[in-house]
Amino acid sequence: MDLKEICLPIAQELNELEKVLTQNLSSRVSFVENVVGYVIQNGGKRLRPILTLLSAKLSGYQGRDAIAIGAAIEFMHTASLLHDDVIDNAPLRRGRETTNRKWGNHVCVLVGDFFYCRAMDILVKQGDLKVLRVVTDAVTVTTEGEIFEITKNNDPTTSEDDYLKIITSKTAALMGSACQAGAILGHLSEDFESALKYFGLYLGIAFQLMDDVLDYTSSVEEFGKASGTDLREGKLTLPLIVALKKSSEIETQIIRNALITDTLEKPIFEQVLKIIHKYDGASETIRMAESYIQKAKDKLSPFKPSLEKETLLTIANYVVLRKN
Amino acid sequence: MDLKEICLPIAQELNELEKVLTQNLSSRVSFVENVVGYVIQNGGKRLRPILTLLSAKLSGYQGRDAIAIGAAIEFMHTASLLHDDVIDNAPLRRGRETTNRKWGNHVCVLVGDFFYCRAMDILVKQGDLKVLRVVTDAVTVTTEGEIFEITKNNDPTTSEDDYLKIITSKTAALMGSACQAGAILGHLSEDFESALKYFGLYLGIAFQLMDDVLDYTSSVEEFGKASGTDLREGKLTLPLIVALKKSSEIETQIIRNALITDTLEKPIFEQVLKIIHKYDGASETIRMAESYIQKAKDKLSPFKPSLEKETLLTIANYVVLRKN
Repeated sequence: MDLKEICLPIAQELNELEKVLTQNLSSRVSFVENVVGYVIQNGGKRLRPILTLLSAKLSGYQGRDAIAIGAAIEFMHTASLLHDDVIDNAPLRRGRETTNRKWGNHVCVLVGDFFYCRAMDILVKQGDLKVLRVVTDAVTVTTEGEIFEITKNNDPTTSEDDYLKIITSKTAALMGSACQAGAILGHLSEDFESALKYFGLYLGIAFQLMDDVLDYTSSVEEFGKASGTDLREGKLTLPLIVALKKSSEIETQIIRNALITDTLEKPIFEQVLKIIHKYDGASETIRMAESYIQKAKDKLSPFKPSLEKETLLTIANYVVLRKN
Repeated sequence: MDLKEICLPIAQELNELEKVLTQNLSSRVSFVENVVGYVIQNGGKRLRPILTLLSAKLSGYQGRDAIAIGAAIEFMHTASLLHDDVIDNAPLRRGRETTNRKWGNHVCVLVGDFFYCRAMDILVKQGDLKVLRVVTDAVTVTTEGEIFEITKNNDPTTSEDDYLKIITSKTAALMGSACQAGAILGHLSEDFESALKYFGLYLGIAFQLMDDVLDYTSSVEEFGKASGTDLREGKLTLPLIVALKKSSEIETQIIRNALITDTLEKPIFEQVLKIIHKYDGASETIRMAESYIQKAKDKLSPFKPSLEKETLLTIANYVVLRKN
């Protein structure tokens, strides 16, 4: 199952979205245009604008502002990726070829700022102060989550609660706001607006849980980034936290060493994989993702059946089934 | 002459400003609070909020929103400093002890983002879409200017026009918006609003020109950062551009070498200083700063005499007289 296929009901809007994304990247500085164009064209699944578009339609909104707001949220997401990829004094070593590798940290930080600025520009032009507040708040939470994550780097005592706080902030908050913005456009009552917000939030938590599973289980080809990236970067994600809770002293030592070493060799990574497998680290994480997807779907139950509702539910299923 | 003394007429508002700055730095993550508190308390002159406060009062505005908007612009400025200090793979070498040196690039980038978010948060709460647009536009221009500056790094063919474009974007635009925001609060007509905007813009150009002179002429103690920083970072500023226009082949070669070397030794720096002195690089830059200050002051001529007008004119004089 592929997201593009699921989203055929809004294919037209998604085409428009691509145009709006491109139109908003003009700059007085040609180098900026080249870089931002490259970054956006090599960009992701557009999951966040998809959520905004579907939520807006589900809320009865028929206008064009959902495309603009979706574009703004996609820019915010792109900016936060660029900024979260800034790695200290570790050029090329970490096994990831990111934008930051191509033009250096400094350019990527400023290009990220440019994306943030354009996002704000779009939202200010659209002019809905409530949408502005909801999205700004979400970006604040995202940033706080990323910083909190750094403070927990390499810390083997990171708890499941810490981890849930991190992924709720750094990933789910913006997805929640993407759905909530759609509800605001449709002028839904507080109940419905909150339901859509939590649909996005729970979906986002499940999305990140699956991301963190895939980082251990998928091959580079399938997932598009080197497996084991989180471990290499000292990030404790749920598969590892689950394993650490049950692992023997020797196994714990192996994981601790793998977390702090500057050069994670394949044999060590495979030892860690075995420990995760032994204690069901991946399958427990998938189970948790599934339970959040169920919570997400439940949030849509007050909405009567519609094509948009069906599509959102299918996206929810996709999140726990996806292989990339 | 010291800025605090000049601003005694708005001492009360500046006290309030400090409170507003602090109040807006609470975070769900305690590490964030510690870092942002440190950064703001060790912060600058508050020149941008001073401009907003005085412009607002000059425009007849008596409310408290000028303090909030000034705080937001100060946060924007702080964020842009943090992001512009990201240096690639050059830990501790460049002779600057910045925030980025203390906690690494990654934290500083995200803390910068936090400042941007809080700035937006304040502006969205204040709720004036025109102020939001003006400030967002200025931050976009700032970012573009900083990227353009990077593309001109180490380029000895950088022209005076390139340089003016860089400093107008990276420094002056935000100061222009700080003044313009004050005018918007006072609901001035377009003419007056534009006059205040250009007052801030010209003042900002002069401010950066003087900064670039001081980088060559002041001692570390006076100016608070190591002299020769721009040369070390490969930034071609006007004192050097002026010298390059007139220098002999041998002198040009010395400057070109100094620009690209990774370790600028004192004797080389002193040779460059001599060349700049020989061709009046510093004094020509000061003359240009003075002419921009005159243009800035002229912009205030349509305003009738008042304490605020007098204070803004004194700040204009301060910009070209300051030693730090």
